[in-house]
Amino acid sequence: MTDPVVLALTAGEPAGIGPELCLQLALEIRTAGIVVVASQPLLEARARQMELPVVLHPWRPGKAPRMEAGHVSVLHVEGCASHQPGRLDPAGSGYVLRTLEIAGNGCLSGDFDGMVTAPVHKGVINEAGIPFSGHTEFLQELCGVRRVVMMLATEQLRVALVTTHLPLKDVSAAITPERLSQVTRILDADLKRFFGIGHPRILVAGLNPHAGEGGHLGREEIETIEPTLDKLRGEGISLTGPLPADTLFTPHWLDQADAVLAMYHDQGLPVLKFQGFGRAVNITLGLPIVRTSVDHGTALDLAGTGRADSGSLHRAIRVGEQMARCQKSSSQETRS
Amino acid sequence: MTDPVVLALTAGEPAGIGPELCLQLALEIRTAGIVVVASQPLLEARARQMELPVVLHPWRPGKAPRMEAGHVSVLHVEGCASHQPGRLDPAGSGYVLRTLEIAGNGCLSGDFDGMVTAPVHKGVINEAGIPFSGHTEFLQELCGVRRVVMMLATEQLRVALVTTHLPLKDVSAAITPERLSQVTRILDADLKRFFGIGHPRILVAGLNPHAGEGGHLGREEIETIEPTLDKLRGEGISLTGPLPADTLFTPHWLDQADAVLAMYHDQGLPVLKFQGFGRAVNITLGLPIVRTSVDHGTALDLAGTGRADSGSLHRAIRVGEQMARCQKSSSQETRS
Repeated sequence: MTDPVVLALTAGEPAGIGPELCLQLALEIRTAGIVVVASQPLLEARARQMELPVVLHPWRPGKAPRMEAGHVSVLHVEGCASHQPGRLDPAGSGYVLRTLEIAGNGCLSGDFDGMVTAPVHKGVINEAGIPFSGHTEFLQELCGVRRVVMMLATEQLRVALVTTHLPLKDVSAAITPERLSQVTRILDADLKRFFGIGHPRILVAGLNPHAGEGGHLGREEIETIEPTLDKLRGEGISLTGPLPADTLFTPHWLDQADAVLAMYHDQGLPVLKFQGFGRAVNITLGLPIVRTSVDHGTALDLAGTGRADSGSLHRAIRVGEQMARCQKSSSQETRS
Repeated sequence: MTDPVVLALTAGEPAGIGPELCLQLALEIRTAGIVVVASQPLLEARARQMELPVVLHPWRPGKAPRMEAGHVSVLHVEGCASHQPGRLDPAGSGYVLRTLEIAGNGCLSGDFDGMVTAPVHKGVINEAGIPFSGHTEFLQELCGVRRVVMMLATEQLRVALVTTHLPLKDVSAAITPERLSQVTRILDADLKRFFGIGHPRILVAGLNPHAGEGGHLGREEIETIEPTLDKLRGEGISLTGPLPADTLFTPHWLDQADAVLAMYHDQGLPVLKFQGFGRAVNITLGLPIVRTSVDHGTALDLAGTGRADSGSLHRAIRVGEQMARCQKSSSQETRS
């Protein structure tokens, strides 16, 4: 029996459903050690409001997290401005970002084997005058890496994106050989590192409808994508494509692949979320640490009502645990 | 008991699977009268090659089509250059287009209640020096209409497109108030006319990821899409959106809608084909006539082998029949 994986779980926006999802999780037995990184008074207040029988235990590095149902370890973070569900308060934005910083640094130092994030509210953080475009970019900077890759996964399907939160009209220009190469290499390497896939098989979508139809519907496939994929194949990466996106997402192709690489957000994610809504996990690849996230937002209107669905958080923890275990065992093999 | 609907079925590219799919269909009892518009010698040759026990009967306007299993009515078209499966011959391109012209004109004159098209091969038609960008555009010109709408449908989902076969980088500029208004009005009108939906509920996708996220990820939603949808709502059209495409294709939204309007090809069709591959039907809206099509290509490698799947053609005929019946009954109600 190996030691349990220890994951930091950031509770996200205090006015959202994040804190209560963390508490609901604590009512169950876990197979991973979870340390909730959040304001302890916030969690206590939300547990009282919702009458959740959870006992909170302060945690410090090196200590084994509590794993019994009804008990949860908490790494307290100061500065939470308000405990009220549903009402955003920009004064708490510094606190929210500190939870991410503490969790991320704890992963880098080895206190945690990975981190799972509940949703934050970008708008209120920016309102507080702090430039913030998302967890992914924040952690990218914290870890000092040049490129990260957003991948969403359900139990049946993994979809990674070459470009993410860009206006559609800017997508074509962003598909450069550099970006496509970096993203593909990260995807290949991290399917090995975190998922234990020896030789990942990746399906690549074209940029244009019908993957450009031989140049009739756009030339990016001919000029950029095909030459780049050929070069990457020369490095030993198993790539199929560029394929028309509306052909690619069919059993004939999906059955023989480990992941899909879509060129942009709305080419890949509608299928993924259609296939596995509420069970999708957002995974950041390319970081030195394991990071997974729920695929939903703060749901301010549901906060405090007990109606929030913890399915996506469960999956994010489960996948984070598997990734961390896989990474640990492969690094142990390397050492031995 | 009403008279059966009479549909023209064009057999498409002679070297492809179209001719044999038409013959396979003829082996079954039909609820619609089908007239295959094709070269009769081509059909005879393919039936012999594949040992299909089908008797062909010449058809002329006004005659009831044969509907028994093993018999099929044929409207012979001259000029088919080759009967060989798998081998394209540009010399037959004029013939292929004449089948479309004859079927389309037969719909306009009332000889047919609608037309269903087996796949043609754009490449070989263009190789013959005839500019041709697809069935849809050909029929649009034949019928003299300014705007048509491509809609794909399965039994569970209908997805119409604002733009179709455009390079991705040109999509943003093509989303004009004019185009969006015309497409939406056609979609609304034809869901009534052909599908008998009294007050169609349409979900509209945004153009950008997260439908622009309040302008942070593109301004087309704010500047073009939202004002246009508001105007159309003022005309009584039931529209929800613009919604993020990766949220829209989930049960919460789909359960309360009759159709989805996607802004571009790879935003809408991957989900549709994932959901219903092999059972999707391509429908042209905005024409004065009923037109449906299979959602697959000529499959030259399968032609003559007997391994082609006629599922999509069955669905195209079924949907064409329903649409024609709906249009007939609504025009009879209008007259009476």
